[in-house]
Formats: sequence, structure tokens, C-alpha cells
Amino acid sequence: MKRLLVIGIGAGDPDHLTLQGAKAIAAADVFFLVDKGEAKQELVRLRQDLIEAHGRGPYRIVEARDPERDRTTPAYAEAVEDWRSRRSQVYERLIRDELEDGRTGAFLVWGDPGVYDSTLAILEEVLERGHVTFDHEVIPGISSVSALTARHRVGLTRVARPVHLTTGRRLAEEGATADDVVVMLDAHCSFAGAGADFHIYWGAYLGTPDEILVSGPVPEVAGRIRELRAEARARKGWIMDTYLLRRLTPPA
Amino acid sequence: MKRLLVIGIGAGDPDHLTLQGAKAIAAADVFFLVDKGEAKQELVRLRQDLIEAHGRGPYRIVEARDPERDRTTPAYAEAVEDWRSRRSQVYERLIRDELEDGRTGAFLVWGDPGVYDSTLAILEEVLERGHVTFDHEVIPGISSVSALTARHRVGLTRVARPVHLTTGRRLAEEGATADDVVVMLDAHCSFAGAGADFHIYWGAYLGTPDEILVSGPVPEVAGRIRELRAEARARKGWIMDTYLLRRLTPPA
Repeated sequence: MKRLLVIGIGAGDPDHLTLQGAKAIAAADVFFLVDKGEAKQELVRLRQDLIEAHGRGPYRIVEARDPERDRTTPAYAEAVEDWRSRRSQVYERLIRDELEDGRTGAFLVWGDPGVYDSTLAILEEVLERGHVTFDHEVIPGISSVSALTARHRVGLTRVARPVHLTTGRRLAEEGATADDVVVMLDAHCSFAGAGADFHIYWGAYLGTPDEILVSGPVPEVAGRIRELRAEARARKGWIMDTYLLRRLTPPA
Repeated sequence: MKRLLVIGIGAGDPDHLTLQGAKAIAAADVFFLVDKGEAKQELVRLRQDLIEAHGRGPYRIVEARDPERDRTTPAYAEAVEDWRSRRSQVYERLIRDELEDGRTGAFLVWGDPGVYDSTLAILEEVLERGHVTFDHEVIPGISSVSALTARHRVGLTRVARPVHLTTGRRLAEEGATADDVVVMLDAHCSFAGAGADFHIYWGAYLGTPDEILVSGPVPEVAGRIRELRAEARARKGWIMDTYLLRRLTPPA
């Protein structure tokens, strides 16, 4: 049997790795680095650093190129699902050709493998097609949500109250659906429309030397976040950010 | 200046600790163990094990007793806030009397300090009263939510869709407010009312040798979860469980 480890490596700080994650890296014979071909060379380098720091030789690193996602269609979910399907063929080929029976392969996943990441769904799709079989295990990681609230020293949740985790696209369409909303994947600063009674806790490049944190009432800090975000994105070529919107005086 | 570290230690597996958490334990001079006086001796022991494994002497362990929460009142949020206020006086005394200037104290918190934990709010309350001052830092941890989805090998989120994090009490009152709902602090198996089209991913004592996992359509597995839960709770004297409800065929 082939064995696969899906290892959450945390939000950007190499010390976000768990002891379980370090042991999983040490146990792997083959690391699959699927490269999006984007400008995020620092992210690729951090994964390589973690393998060098915690890998126990001999191991191999197999790199592959991710297919392109159609970014022109307005049908976001369909485009992502089509993309996932094409990616699952790349993953299937990697597992079939690059991992021998009895060996352990590993995927290093940013943040937590459960939070807006497609690796688990891709592996399910590979298993359903039935051309290769494997056993797999998931190692949880520090999500950017946990990193965000830790750096701002605030709770994600308040006593006896819910929190909604959503995307920038949905926030733009639906507005804030609760008094506490965490937003990920927001390329358009949709927080600006959240309403004057919300406080925002925003963070970019969390856990890295480039980390930027801003918090304050949305009307007061929205402009500054927008400027910092545009400037950092232009300078580095990419940005990963997330934020918590919190209504501080909920309506009665 | 006094320095405090609020360290997320993960959901129950000692290997959930992050490298950052291990370094934080090594940096602490004083560990504050605030004991709820409950039957959870295993939980107390795991914290002591982590201190022994990662602490760098000389360090002190200071134990204190948590005040009792009023569990008779139906006003849950108010009771929790009153309790928090009384706890903040205990914490204030610990920081004032047991931590010298220039030293580092640590609180070891289950899961992630941001997720339904009161330590951060208590420290804010201590700071607001202004009788002691300190600097504090939060080290994120693996929440029981991350541990749950990892053990079930499912995503917390689905493509372009939100997930709601809520309490058992709210689920009982409001029903499932989204197609993906994570429920914590549910003493009454409120999942049973979620509706026949939901799948449940349930876990108790996540990350520990006593871990129990059940998943399946709610109508098929609700009875089994209820039995397992009651049996385990009676045998061990306490239970910590959480679950994800997922509507597999969302209405059009």
C-alpha cells in the first residue's frame, strides 16, 4: 500500500509547524511540491526549508506544475471545480509514477489542510476514480485564522456567540451575516462595505518577516488597509491576507 | 515589565504543540495552572507533561483554583461573564504576587486560545482594571475544530462556501444556519434536530488515546453517538466533543 501524509505547515512562520508535522516530515520518503508557477518563490522556499530542517534522508522531492485555473469566467465555483479535476490528474500521475508501494509521500499544505485548501478534495477525487489506491492521513496545522487572532490577541469567538467564516466574494454579495465574520480570499477589500459599526482585525503575510497588522473601526482604517495592501502586493508580486470583522455594539 | 505568554497547546495530542509553543514553554519562568477542580486529571497531567518535556529550568509551577461558575441560572452569557470577572481577580492576584518584573509567565490553553476560551478576555479585564501591567503574547494552537476535520480527513470549508462555528445551545435554538456548521460546547446532542439531509462528523477526546470518531448521515448515526457519548462520559467523568454538520445535497 502507498501512504500519503497531508501536512498542515501553518500560516507562514516555520515555527507554526507542530511536533506531529515535524515527525510526519521526518517519516516521508517523497515530497510532492506542486508549483503554481506564480511569483510566490518565498512560499516555495519555506516549504523547502521545512523539508531540509525536519526531513530524514534519504528522501526525494518531486516537483510538478499545477494546471492553470480559468480566471476569466464569472462562474467561480465551477471554474475551481474544473481546475480541481485537472489537478487531480496531475496528483494521480504523481502518486502512480513517483511513489512506490510501501513508501510514504507527503504534501505540505499552507495553514490547515481543512481551511479553503483543495488537497483533500483532490485526493478524494483520485480515490474515487480508482486508478490508484493509497492510505492517507491528515496532520492539522495552524490556520491563518488562528495566526490572525493570535497576533491581534483577540478571541475568534465571543461568549455564547457564533462566528462565520466566509470568502470576500460572499461578503461583497451578502454583507456581514453575523456580528463576527472572518473573511478569506478577498482580493477586493470587501470589508469597506461592512458597515460603520464594525471593527476590523486585518493581517497580511501572517507569521512572516513581512507581516502587516492593522486594526480599528472599519471607517477609520479601511483606506489605510487598502493602501498598505496595494503597496505590498505591488512590491512583492503577491499577497495573502485575512481579517476578522467584529460588530462591537451589536443591535439589541 | 512582566511578560505573559498565552500558549495554545492543541486539542489533546502532545504532538499538537507547535515549535513556537515548545519555545514559549522553554522561555517561561512561571507556569500558572488554574485548576477547575473537576475530574479532568488527565488534562492537568498533559499540561504537566508538556512543561516537563519542553520547560527549561529553573521554572516554577503555581497552581490556583478557579472560582465556581453558576450553572443553575438560565442566563448563560451573563453567568459566564460574571464567572470571568471573578476569575480575572484570581489571575490578577497571580500576576501581581507570583510573577516578578522582568520575568515571563505562561498560561497553557487547550486547543487554540482564540476559540471559545476565556483566557484572553480575562487578561483584557485585568489590564483594564489597571492594578497590574504586563505585556502579553498569544501563541496559536491546533483547535479541536482542526483536529476534528483532520481526523475525519474532510475539509472544514467547501469551495466558495461559508462555514458557521456555533454552540450547542444556539444550534438547539436556531437550527443549522448554514450548509456547514461546526458545533462546540454541546452537552445535549443537539445535532439530532439538524435535519435528515445532514451528514455529521463527530469526535470526542480528539488526539488522545480515548479518541472516538463517528461519521454518517445524522438519522443513521445520532443514536449511536448519543450512546457512545453517554457511556464515555460516565466512564471517564468528563467529555469534550465537537462536530461538523454538513448538508450534502444543499437545496437549490
